[in-house]
Amino acid sequence: MRLAIIGLGLIGGSIARAIRSDNPAATIESIVAWSPTGLGPAAAMSEGVIDRAAATLAEAVDRAELIVLATDPLACLELLDMIAATDFAGEPPTITDVASTKGVIVNRADRLRLSFVGGHPMAGLETSGYGHSRSDLFAGKPWVICPGAQARPIDLERVAQLVAACGAEAHRISAREHDRAVAAVSHLPLALAAALVQAVSSADDWPIARALAAGGWSSATRLARGDVAMGAGIAATNAPELARRIRAMLSQLDDWLADLEATPDDPDATAERIAARLRAARETFGPAA
Amino acid sequence: MRLAIIGLGLIGGSIARAIRSDNPAATIESIVAWSPTGLGPAAAMSEGVIDRAAATLAEAVDRAELIVLATDPLACLELLDMIAATDFAGEPPTITDVASTKGVIVNRADRLRLSFVGGHPMAGLETSGYGHSRSDLFAGKPWVICPGAQARPIDLERVAQLVAACGAEAHRISAREHDRAVAAVSHLPLALAAALVQAVSSADDWPIARALAAGGWSSATRLARGDVAMGAGIAATNAPELARRIRAMLSQLDDWLADLEATPDDPDATAERIAARLRAARETFGPAA
Repeated sequence: MRLAIIGLGLIGGSIARAIRSDNPAATIESIVAWSPTGLGPAAAMSEGVIDRAAATLAEAVDRAELIVLATDPLACLELLDMIAATDFAGEPPTITDVASTKGVIVNRADRLRLSFVGGHPMAGLETSGYGHSRSDLFAGKPWVICPGAQARPIDLERVAQLVAACGAEAHRISAREHDRAVAAVSHLPLALAAALVQAVSSADDWPIARALAAGGWSSATRLARGDVAMGAGIAATNAPELARRIRAMLSQLDDWLADLEATPDDPDATAERIAARLRAARETFGPAA
Repeated sequence: MRLAIIGLGLIGGSIARAIRSDNPAATIESIVAWSPTGLGPAAAMSEGVIDRAAATLAEAVDRAELIVLATDPLACLELLDMIAATDFAGEPPTITDVASTKGVIVNRADRLRLSFVGGHPMAGLETSGYGHSRSDLFAGKPWVICPGAQARPIDLERVAQLVAACGAEAHRISAREHDRAVAAVSHLPLALAAALVQAVSSADDWPIARALAAGGWSSATRLARGDVAMGAGIAATNAPELARRIRAMLSQLDDWLADLEATPDDPDATAERIAARLRAARETFGPAA
């Protein structure tokens, strides 16, 4: 299988490395990559991670059997438009992506009548760029598969090979189920991390607070250190679901406020109410470590 | 110096281990510990981490020069009452604590006219109990010092010795400054983690969402895995400051909602607004990694 990766940052680079480091069935015979800056492909070429750094998008997708769009969601939409305008000789290629939202992207591919299978590996880091890519990024992780309306059996097979070559586990669900779920476990946490940083760093005592920040602050704000364009594209292409989750969060925080302020002169009673909340959250994780 | 540690869980145990593993000036000649269950002290005795497991609180504090209350904030208040009722022969001992809130505790100690220096090492884990204690828990970390109204020079000196023996760095600030700051960087993150878990796990698609949860979910919810009684005591003894921070967070999330929903048919415009938010948060951390 001839593979083309468009965008060779953290995710695209990690896909190339995974295939190169552990290609069990040797079904992927060549990897060509292209990105707007060309930096990732050039570095990958010099390391032998890809076979060719294409000079243009058209050159990259020419004769490719599987095209992986490894960009942020908004760039994916543009790339789908550009690929739909490409004149492929022979069989149309399979197109997949790795973006964190699926509904908007699968809909666009369907409207363009592309042979598309949406994908989303559930792995990432707060770093970005080819320099941070790792061959084991996807090992044992879920990789969501959302086939488009025009997906052929061969398209599903090629994407399954890609997922397997990356050591991930395919989870086939609908784009709508995916977008609702990741709004909960990924996009809401990102919004909270960024909102937390802004809420706290805009207060007048931020210098003192910052000096006392410890491990809890680091983990609570880790997601706010990620790539800005990526996060913005994710939020923008999953806005209704993210908004719905933010409203659920607002409701929880209103309940916290009520519990904190109901008995100002009785800290024991306050503690009991808050303990009930913390216990309910704690039990979601199963028995204590 | 004769040290008594009341409560020998993660923090108390780590203090004992730190002193035992690296006691540069050998100023702490003996460690006696007591806890309601006696489990921590028994384990620490068998490991040679403390010199004596006291059978009662009274036995533990008898002849101690420095008493460390290593319990949750509400238990600290009870212990202060009990210690104030103790008849100490000779010089009254220095009392300190390690609880995550300071105002309520320092006020109580002052009302009881105790020789008290409030303390708060800015280190912790999501685990609890003596079994998780580590000698390097405080190494290089800030340790807040809030002297009470009756603190003598000798009290400040003894607590400084304790902090140094743990390898931490003393930060002297007022209890009010401390409580405001930790509400921002510690207590609000805890409330958010617990509220996030409840907001998401109560939705009907939780089984699907849970299956897709990745590293971002783990770090965003890490604090919700911590000790329930500890978290509840912290929130209850810092309720007004925590409530104030939650209101700042609600305001941020309202702004997120407005930005997400202003232009439903123009994802690029939505992305620009969200990117501005993410960029502002990102810049708080300094240059990208």
